[in-house]
Amino acid sequence: MTTADWRPEGWLDDATLAAVRRQLPIVYVDAVPVRVDDSGDVVAVGLLLRMVDGRMTRALVSGRVLYHERVRDALLRHIEKDLGPVALPQVPSSPQPFTVAEYLPTPGVTPYHDPRQHAVSLAYVVPVAGDCQPQQDAIDLAWITPEEACGDEVQLEMSGGHGYLLRQAMAHVGRLP
Amino acid sequence: MTTADWRPEGWLDDATLAAVRRQLPIVYVDAVPVRVDDSGDVVAVGLLLRMVDGRMTRALVSGRVLYHERVRDALLRHIEKDLGPVALPQVPSSPQPFTVAEYLPTPGVTPYHDPRQHAVSLAYVVPVAGDCQPQQDAIDLAWITPEEACGDEVQLEMSGGHGYLLRQAMAHVGRLP
Amino acid sequence: MTTADWRPEGWLDDATLAAVRRQLPIVYVDAVPVRVDDSGDVVAVGLLLRMVDGRMTRALVSGRVLYHERVRDALLRHIEKDLGPVALPQVPSSPQPFTVAEYLPTPGVTPYHDPRQHAVSLAYVVPVAGDCQPQQDAIDLAWITPEEACGDEVQLEMSGGHGYLLRQAMAHVGRLP
Amino acid sequence: MTTADWRPEGWLDDATLAAVRRQLPIVYVDAVPVRVDDSGDVVAVGLLLRMVDGRMTRALVSGRVLYHERVRDALLRHIEKDLGPVALPQVPSSPQPFTVAEYLPTPGVTPYHDPRQHAVSLAYVVPVAGDCQPQQDAIDLAWITPEEACGDEVQLEMSGGHGYLLRQAMAHVGRLP
Repeated sequence: MTTADWRPEGWLDDATLAAVRRQLPIVYVDAVPVRVDDSGDVVAVGLLLRMVDGRMTRALVSGRVLYHERVRDALLRHIEKDLGPVALPQVPSSPQPFTVAEYLPTPGVTPYHDPRQHAVSLAYVVPVAGDCQPQQDAIDLAWITPEEACGDEVQLEMSGGHGYLLRQAMAHVGRLP
Repeated sequence: MTTADWRPEGWLDDATLAAVRRQLPIVYVDAVPVRVDDSGDVVAVGLLLRMVDGRMTRALVSGRVLYHERVRDALLRHIEKDLGPVALPQVPSSPQPFTVAEYLPTPGVTPYHDPRQHAVSLAYVVPVAGDCQPQQDAIDLAWITPEEACGDEVQLEMSGGHGYLLRQAMAHVGRLP
Repeated sequence: MTTADWRPEGWLDDATLAAVRRQLPIVYVDAVPVRVDDSGDVVAVGLLLRMVDGRMTRALVSGRVLYHERVRDALLRHIEKDLGPVALPQVPSSPQPFTVAEYLPTPGVTPYHDPRQHAVSLAYVVPVAGDCQPQQDAIDLAWITPEEACGDEVQLEMSGGHGYLLRQAMAHVGRLP
Repeated sequence: MTTADWRPEGWLDDATLAAVRRQLPIVYVDAVPVRVDDSGDVVAVGLLLRMVDGRMTRALVSGRVLYHERVRDALLRHIEKDLGPVALPQVPSSPQPFTVAEYLPTPGVTPYHDPRQHAVSLAYVVPVAGDCQPQQDAIDLAWITPEEACGDEVQLEMSGGHGYLLRQAMAHVGRLP
């Protein structure tokens, strides 16, 4: 039986999900999409551009793990949702994340913050080899160098600790400026 | 503001928690308590003995991460709850787990299984230096060698994939038999 | 300046290298070649078959890191040397290995053994997407399941701790039987 | 037989070691000594102060792995050599480093540099619980906050990429400023 064959007893409606989000930590995944060269060295980072409240923001690929969904299937689903169906992501063979990002509704307890909820997010660097197109609410997908990604300008356009997580990812792959 | 200063808007009552457990993955931590020598090499593994339905079972330290609780605080809390207040655990300085155990209500999708819920558990090897005493429902805490821990006899006394996770932990520390 | 542009002051001749191997640990890489599905889950492991002293043996991709060579370039070079030029290996973006295998000339100190030398080997799981052909001294490259790879029959055909390292790799990717 | 019981066939004399250092990568370990709180959170980083060519420099604990010495024994030996015999280091139970630092004699190929040699260094964060005293050539051991450790002033006093490795360590433990 695969994940796809399975159906839950009932989805949470939006009101219930909102209530639960104030009472339980929610399981998330964060993916840092990267382009790599033949030696696996990261040469570019892909960031989603969105307009939020009239302000340009940049974000990583991020989303919830569903009931009865494996972490690796959630990763694949969110990457396809945000980068399109032919991004050809190389989902890691090991479930070991490079870090765990703890988004709390109270700012300052951890480097991460989400006013809506307490999310515990497994973070992965994911090389994508195919053609990526911004989907849904994103207005662009920009590929920038690790140096640009960690620079003040880009960091200020990221919120909730995504800029911090991105710098941790670059430290992990040895491309922190 | 520390984790301890914070109070939730309202705890989930048991019925609601039971319902949510059929609809959302729950964040867990698993700790493999170990004794180490001066070089950090694992010399013994601590397993909790419990009577479950009249049968002797062995288990790792395991439990839920609460709303607004950091993963490292959940680890410390569960270790103190199961091993007592003077176990002196060395909670890892990095949140990177050695693996992520996905306990699904359907057996066979992953090596882990929990009929009550879908738990996504961050797994850590935790050296404990102090005096450990079984608490609450546990009738004993047995320290056994990595070889014994991975042997058929002990593995058969563990359920839900704890035996599997224990072998992964021993592979991670280089003590798989 | 890339690794390829660089030339050493002088290669070690075979006699000197043999002498040094009895006096200094040598830097190695080990790669476990795998096939993965779209979700990154390991479905097969690639093992090299060689005749050694009239006996069939199975081995991982393994070799020395050269002076002034980056670890990732050594990984790529040894994979191409053993699996051919169109294997399309996905060399990890992070230098963090899943473990470090310490091959000592004295058996029993660690799970790894090499009578010729003390090698400290950085071990990686490397998905390969392309066509693989055994090269040089290998007579075949067999793709087998993780279950077969960890089974007694295959484990007995591996020597020096390669079977042990393979089981650690399968534990790391969640495919230990 | 333990590591300590073993004697090499012959130590390398200084001239030979110097020659080999221009021809083979040398196995190293780097340790970032830290103080942690009960939850394992890093509260301070320990840096060695030395006078080098009349200039004040700060350094991590770093050194060679000897022939037939396990990585964990080398870590313990170098920490005791630099922090004294009662530092009570908690050497990691797993050999998996948080990163691998590649010190090349040519600057700019990697973030690390060592004009004397090509060193491949396994890097670990090591909590120390005891009393630390600077030894030998160090004139002081300063405990500073992660924020100070990553600040410009301290970073400029570190050389060869130690400042970079320190920032990677802080990213790994979630304490990058």
